[in-house]
Amino acid sequence: MLIVPEREIANLMTRQAAFEAVEKVFAAMAAGDAYNFPVVREAIGHEDALYGFKGGFDRAGLTLGLKAGGYWPNNLEKRGLINHQSTVFLFDPDTGKVKAMVGGNLLTALRTAAASSVSIKHLARPDARVLGMVGAGHQATFQLRAALEQRSFDKVIGWNYHPEMLPNIQKVADEAGVPFETVELNGMRQADVIISITSAFAPSLMADHVAPGCHVACMGTDTKGKQEVEAALLARATVFTDEVAQSVQIGEAQHAVAQGLIAESDVTQIGAVINGTHPGRDSDDQITLFDGTGVGLQDLAVAASVVDLAVQQGIAITVDF
Amino acid sequence: MLIVPEREIANLMTRQAAFEAVEKVFAAMAAGDAYNFPVVREAIGHEDALYGFKGGFDRAGLTLGLKAGGYWPNNLEKRGLINHQSTVFLFDPDTGKVKAMVGGNLLTALRTAAASSVSIKHLARPDARVLGMVGAGHQATFQLRAALEQRSFDKVIGWNYHPEMLPNIQKVADEAGVPFETVELNGMRQADVIISITSAFAPSLMADHVAPGCHVACMGTDTKGKQEVEAALLARATVFTDEVAQSVQIGEAQHAVAQGLIAESDVTQIGAVINGTHPGRDSDDQITLFDGTGVGLQDLAVAASVVDLAVQQGIAITVDF
Repeated sequence: MLIVPEREIANLMTRQAAFEAVEKVFAAMAAGDAYNFPVVREAIGHEDALYGFKGGFDRAGLTLGLKAGGYWPNNLEKRGLINHQSTVFLFDPDTGKVKAMVGGNLLTALRTAAASSVSIKHLARPDARVLGMVGAGHQATFQLRAALEQRSFDKVIGWNYHPEMLPNIQKVADEAGVPFETVELNGMRQADVIISITSAFAPSLMADHVAPGCHVACMGTDTKGKQEVEAALLARATVFTDEVAQSVQIGEAQHAVAQGLIAESDVTQIGAVINGTHPGRDSDDQITLFDGTGVGLQDLAVAASVVDLAVQQGIAITVDF
Repeated sequence: MLIVPEREIANLMTRQAAFEAVEKVFAAMAAGDAYNFPVVREAIGHEDALYGFKGGFDRAGLTLGLKAGGYWPNNLEKRGLINHQSTVFLFDPDTGKVKAMVGGNLLTALRTAAASSVSIKHLARPDARVLGMVGAGHQATFQLRAALEQRSFDKVIGWNYHPEMLPNIQKVADEAGVPFETVELNGMRQADVIISITSAFAPSLMADHVAPGCHVACMGTDTKGKQEVEAALLARATVFTDEVAQSVQIGEAQHAVAQGLIAESDVTQIGAVINGTHPGRDSDDQITLFDGTGVGLQDLAVAASVVDLAVQQGIAITVDF
């Protein structure tokens, strides 16, 4: 079996490879060739940790396995380790034998960034010029970096609940040579694309903060109770997601569905757009919204991709297991 | 992190170590110190395989992780590999980082054998002399070998649906120097202990085949629909199990509960007997029945034990992950 340690991922994995892996597996999900298993997520009663497994199988890519790990909130302070810790395990679908073990921390950040980028590619207006960022934490830098590759943006505007964190994303815009501007939330009306990446339990971005024609990617809500945008925005938008069941249960759509503003049948898998079985955006005035909940198949897809790269470059550790 | 490949397990792991690990974790479960996560089990639609994850956390032993794998029915015929394939992954509960990867095939056989042995130690009459085996497949040899260490048995009697397989278990009895006898199912009335280890979907062992004072360990039923013994036997017996929720849902007790012959509250965790909070057997005439459904914590416990042994003997492979 092959091992790709966490420390090697940064030098191996590219945003392009992550984008291609995620786009492909979203397409496979919509075609019925790939599916996610029920998620296990447990508060283990030790170190306040959340731990669990996200598994899946992609029949098209022959990728089988899981991401195991979770959130250890005391890691950074107590041990200088990052709080999110995960590892991906791939299995041979022909035999059930373990095939690869891959560090999952950076991959998780990259696959989450790839998801909003895939949504921008397929749903944002081709002439989008202003990119809005709601949220300026560590993950926001990944989302922004990847998003900037999808359209010829000529400005990035940013808002964060704690404004002192905005330099995190300004730095990314600077590196890409794109002007950056701090705005209030109602300033997001200038944006053609908005990425919301917070861990909030109450909406920041309201329906009136979003102009017609905008594409909004909501990337922070992955748990019951979390919420980034006003439910009325989903009623006004055409809603897409990675996986419909997750979207309406633990994703951003949970609130609009609970309030009866939209039905589960109003939420479309983005893979259908990638596959051309759904038209996607149908006018320049339409608001499109992508509810990125994060699925195990994304993790497996980027892990399989990095294993291929590690083998090509002679970096994978081989263990006779 | 540490790796213990499948090929090393046979030389490292002892029946004694497996017994101690399983007895200890059953006790921790009953004390509320250890619990199993929801089981994921999926028919993946490829190679007719069943694949999934059994996880858990033992706060007492600080063992966290999962067994991943399943059943690949074409492995043996197509590839000369065994059909059951599994791997155990242990995580550091303080940090969420992966700690060890261990081959899980032989360990699964050993932990299943240890479970019926633990039940014999704590529930069979001390003067038990005749051991009955219902089932003579590969796993039956493990159950028998481990059971023979728990009492001074002076005879093994065996029945199997396919009698031509009985030499499998006769060989184990021969090696232990204990006389072996083939019987019809009603011959099981001579047995003081019966282990049933089949994958049947209809009962073989009926209530009238079991004498008063017998201890019966039902080790084969781990899925809805499977059944090894007549439901009436559970009504006549005092019923114990590894985990009550599994016992009444997918274990042998599912049928007696569904038929209203016993209630969930009639099923006792064997850990309570180990801990002395339940008296266990209370007379020489009582029939005790152990419903061994198989839980993830057993896998984690034996895997943690074999990692310790591998480290002690300098056999564990260390990978800087």
